[in-house]
Amino acid sequence: MIKKIILFFAVLIAIVIGQQPLNVVPYPQQVSIGTCVIPVAPGSILIESNIESATFSVSMDRYTNLFFPFSNESEPSSNESFLLSVTIYSDDETLQLGIDESYSLSIEQGSYQLKATNIYGAMRGLETFKQLIVYNELENSYSIVCVSISDSPRYPWRGFMVDSARHYIPKNMILHMIDSLGFSKFNTLHWHMVDAVAFPVESTTYPDLTKGAFSPSATFSHDDIQEVVAYAKTYGIRVIPEFDIPGHAAAWGIGYPELVATCPDYAANVNNIPLDISNPATFTFIQNLFTEIAPLFIDNYFHTGGDELVTGCWLEDPAIANWMTKMGFSTTDAFQYFENNLDVTMKSINRTKITWNDPIDYGVQLNPETLVQVWSSGSDLQGIVNSGYKALVSFAWYLDKQNPDNNIHYEWQDTWQDFYAADPTNNISTNAENIIGGEATMWAEQINQVNWDVRVWPRAIGIAERLWSAQSVNSVSLALPRIGHFTCDLSRRGIQSGPLFPDYCPMQDDLVFTMKPNTKLSKSEIKLILNK
Amino acid sequence: MIKKIILFFAVLIAIVIGQQPLNVVPYPQQVSIGTCVIPVAPGSILIESNIESATFSVSMDRYTNLFFPFSNESEPSSNESFLLSVTIYSDDETLQLGIDESYSLSIEQGSYQLKATNIYGAMRGLETFKQLIVYNELENSYSIVCVSISDSPRYPWRGFMVDSARHYIPKNMILHMIDSLGFSKFNTLHWHMVDAVAFPVESTTYPDLTKGAFSPSATFSHDDIQEVVAYAKTYGIRVIPEFDIPGHAAAWGIGYPELVATCPDYAANVNNIPLDISNPATFTFIQNLFTEIAPLFIDNYFHTGGDELVTGCWLEDPAIANWMTKMGFSTTDAFQYFENNLDVTMKSINRTKITWNDPIDYGVQLNPETLVQVWSSGSDLQGIVNSGYKALVSFAWYLDKQNPDNNIHYEWQDTWQDFYAADPTNNISTNAENIIGGEATMWAEQINQVNWDVRVWPRAIGIAERLWSAQSVNSVSLALPRIGHFTCDLSRRGIQSGPLFPDYCPMQDDLVFTMKPNTKLSKSEIKLILNK
Repeated sequence: MIKKIILFFAVLIAIVIGQQPLNVVPYPQQVSIGTCVIPVAPGSILIESNIESATFSVSMDRYTNLFFPFSNESEPSSNESFLLSVTIYSDDETLQLGIDESYSLSIEQGSYQLKATNIYGAMRGLETFKQLIVYNELENSYSIVCVSISDSPRYPWRGFMVDSARHYIPKNMILHMIDSLGFSKFNTLHWHMVDAVAFPVESTTYPDLTKGAFSPSATFSHDDIQEVVAYAKTYGIRVIPEFDIPGHAAAWGIGYPELVATCPDYAANVNNIPLDISNPATFTFIQNLFTEIAPLFIDNYFHTGGDELVTGCWLEDPAIANWMTKMGFSTTDAFQYFENNLDVTMKSINRTKITWNDPIDYGVQLNPETLVQVWSSGSDLQGIVNSGYKALVSFAWYLDKQNPDNNIHYEWQDTWQDFYAADPTNNISTNAENIIGGEATMWAEQINQVNWDVRVWPRAIGIAERLWSAQSVNSVSLALPRIGHFTCDLSRRGIQSGPLFPDYCPMQDDLVFTMKPNTKLSKSEIKLILNK
Repeated sequence: MIKKIILFFAVLIAIVIGQQPLNVVPYPQQVSIGTCVIPVAPGSILIESNIESATFSVSMDRYTNLFFPFSNESEPSSNESFLLSVTIYSDDETLQLGIDESYSLSIEQGSYQLKATNIYGAMRGLETFKQLIVYNELENSYSIVCVSISDSPRYPWRGFMVDSARHYIPKNMILHMIDSLGFSKFNTLHWHMVDAVAFPVESTTYPDLTKGAFSPSATFSHDDIQEVVAYAKTYGIRVIPEFDIPGHAAAWGIGYPELVATCPDYAANVNNIPLDISNPATFTFIQNLFTEIAPLFIDNYFHTGGDELVTGCWLEDPAIANWMTKMGFSTTDAFQYFENNLDVTMKSINRTKITWNDPIDYGVQLNPETLVQVWSSGSDLQGIVNSGYKALVSFAWYLDKQNPDNNIHYEWQDTWQDFYAADPTNNISTNAENIIGGEATMWAEQINQVNWDVRVWPRAIGIAERLWSAQSVNSVSLALPRIGHFTCDLSRRGIQSGPLFPDYCPMQDDLVFTMKPNTKLSKSEIKLILNK
């Protein structure tokens, strides 16, 4: 109780000295607080937009349902209604890297105005507006403070990697994850779809690939993928598939053994098995598969992995070793040959390649347009941006690790502070402009739909804010009360996000955690959303 | 996929060499595997007991509902029914430390026999029986292996501490926690009810105590407590309240300021405020409060905390400092005086005191009957058992810590291995017989009902097995496949327990996590259970 009072005073002091006075996460770029506080009754807030959009309609309906978590318990209101007027200046719904996500929000007595260039900026504004509605438990009432906000993200790529290979993640859980990412203003879902242990993606061209799934019922159909892409679009979240090759390819070989290298000495670790790149049929296979899969996504980027290739397996496979000798290839040459061939496929499917930083570490010259996701270290990142590549930071944001930054806190959840401290430009002295953002990763060796939420939240909030807010927004003590409000709010929305300090979060009596999305899109909605 | 195969072979090898061939957690003392495997159809297993017991009836109904998680999806069975015949030799339902929890289980073609001294041993046997029923996803079928098991726990005190002070834990969530503890054969719920930040326990004698609760709706009534005690009894789980005094007492002072010491220099940390023991009214208050509360519990033990007393606060309070001078008391003397007075109350309410090890560290001579819960270290434990006290191990089992045993794993969940390795007798050379068990602790600074399951499970399974199984059952690699089955099974039962390695756990399509118990007891059932 006294700790609560201390936090309360901390917030009060923050207001007095003008720092982060709003409980909004990620913290907006510009905030100007007014003097009025407007009571709002459940059901009294209506959203009206100046444009017709199937995609944005879903977003408006979603937030209208989220504004008042305890509305079922309230008396019907006789108060007047408030209209949140949304002005969107362009009806262009193109969702690609670099779209304008800015918005402005003005709350005054009698006037709620949200303005944005496009629907995606408006979605960010709706989330901020939702967070401004404060619930008072003792009075069972809601209010909103008068405020003027002007906001836009620091980085255009605010990604989250979901691994649906180490454990199968049902489609509904992936949609549920998207809810949580959208609430936190992440804008990119990096879908690590397949890996050494499992190939859960259905292919019409190569139906035996899903023999590499954990179970016939643990697979993603084309319809599943399209639903995920459409659902993500209702949050302004791009979806980028990863097919991790040439390493981590054992699961490809369950249905198509000829695709993978044979190396008994390495086979005890399933992660050691790469594709057999000596066989031209392998490249035909990749070409055909990606030609089938890529159109299910709308994004210009396509992730081809490239990490942790075990070239020793290639050398142990006589056919591959002979081919390398014949070609006069070192292992680096062979890896280079693979990446060069992959570029041909990327061009034919009209996609820009993303890889992990491993090919570069291995001496491979990547196509200069390749986007490099750095999981190794800040010094590797410095070299990569100096070489002119655009890059994503991931090394600091491994949510699976016990000690992500080698810091030891008392509580495991306090690792959020390490994520928060990891500014993408830390120790980067030159070419920082080549860093276009970053990605949190939740590798799934010890994750399935049951524990994903709690292992990710509230810790990933620190990453979300780092990627969106100004670099100067970096105080743990100022962030803490804001995150406290937000994590409680996430729980009420059905996202399992625990607390970071002793406090009280009133929740709905009938709250259950469903591992399902908050909105069910119909087939016709999916079609409308994808075609716009 | 290949990793799965490796695990499969590991299990096969274990069977061949006779080690832990059953996927049962905690592993039983004696197992003899037969040669037959019996197919069982959903709904076909009936349980029949030779005694009438309201308490055991709840347990039988519960398990009957749990045997077939996918039964709703199955065709009605035309197979024959199987009768699990339960023989209980005594109808004595006394639930106290040291009751006989042994059972034997014999599964043969046409005969399922569970035998136990009392209903609590029979409950352990039902849990083992449940774990023996194996689900085959591809065939959507169930089977059970022929086996003969004779089992009993290594330690009589297998406890779990739940902190409902740092965050309020709704009654339904405490009942849900009891489900998870019962499934894992924990037998003691140590309910850390109040602490510095909150006093959520309603008192009819002192109604202002709940002014120290986070909210008027964040409290436990007498009825709530009795429901918890009755519900725990349906799992053979004892419930022991902790009222942590004389330190950590700030929340007592919200409603009754005269109870607590005043020390401005220490007040910045709410944990620093102890009771004012110079005031005789404090002891009257404790006496009256405990006289009211103790009868709500049926256990002979009562935990009075005693940890982290900040005597500096006493010395800064002029009234207390003057009283100490008058009495000629050092701080140790004052602490001794407090514990001596507490013993008088314990005697009057007919309870045996438990404290944390701090009074002993402080030089206090505790009543020799005091049970000491050691949270500091193994060397302290050695000294305490050498002094003749009975003791509980807790220091190795702090579930809140990032690095519980200062070991760094790659994944946070792998800290289960540290818990598993922590044998209570590690580094104990003498008087190990004074260790009567141990307790996992889940302190709640960063825990509420939303994230408790995932932060506790599957890691606490390692503790459950350490306290139940033979000391020689200590191989991580042999435990892993068993825990893999069990954690999947926990999920299907509604307990959020994640995986420890890449695998596939088929779950019900309609599975939701409710933070509620699997059984709702009626008021008349609660009365019947408590009165037996």
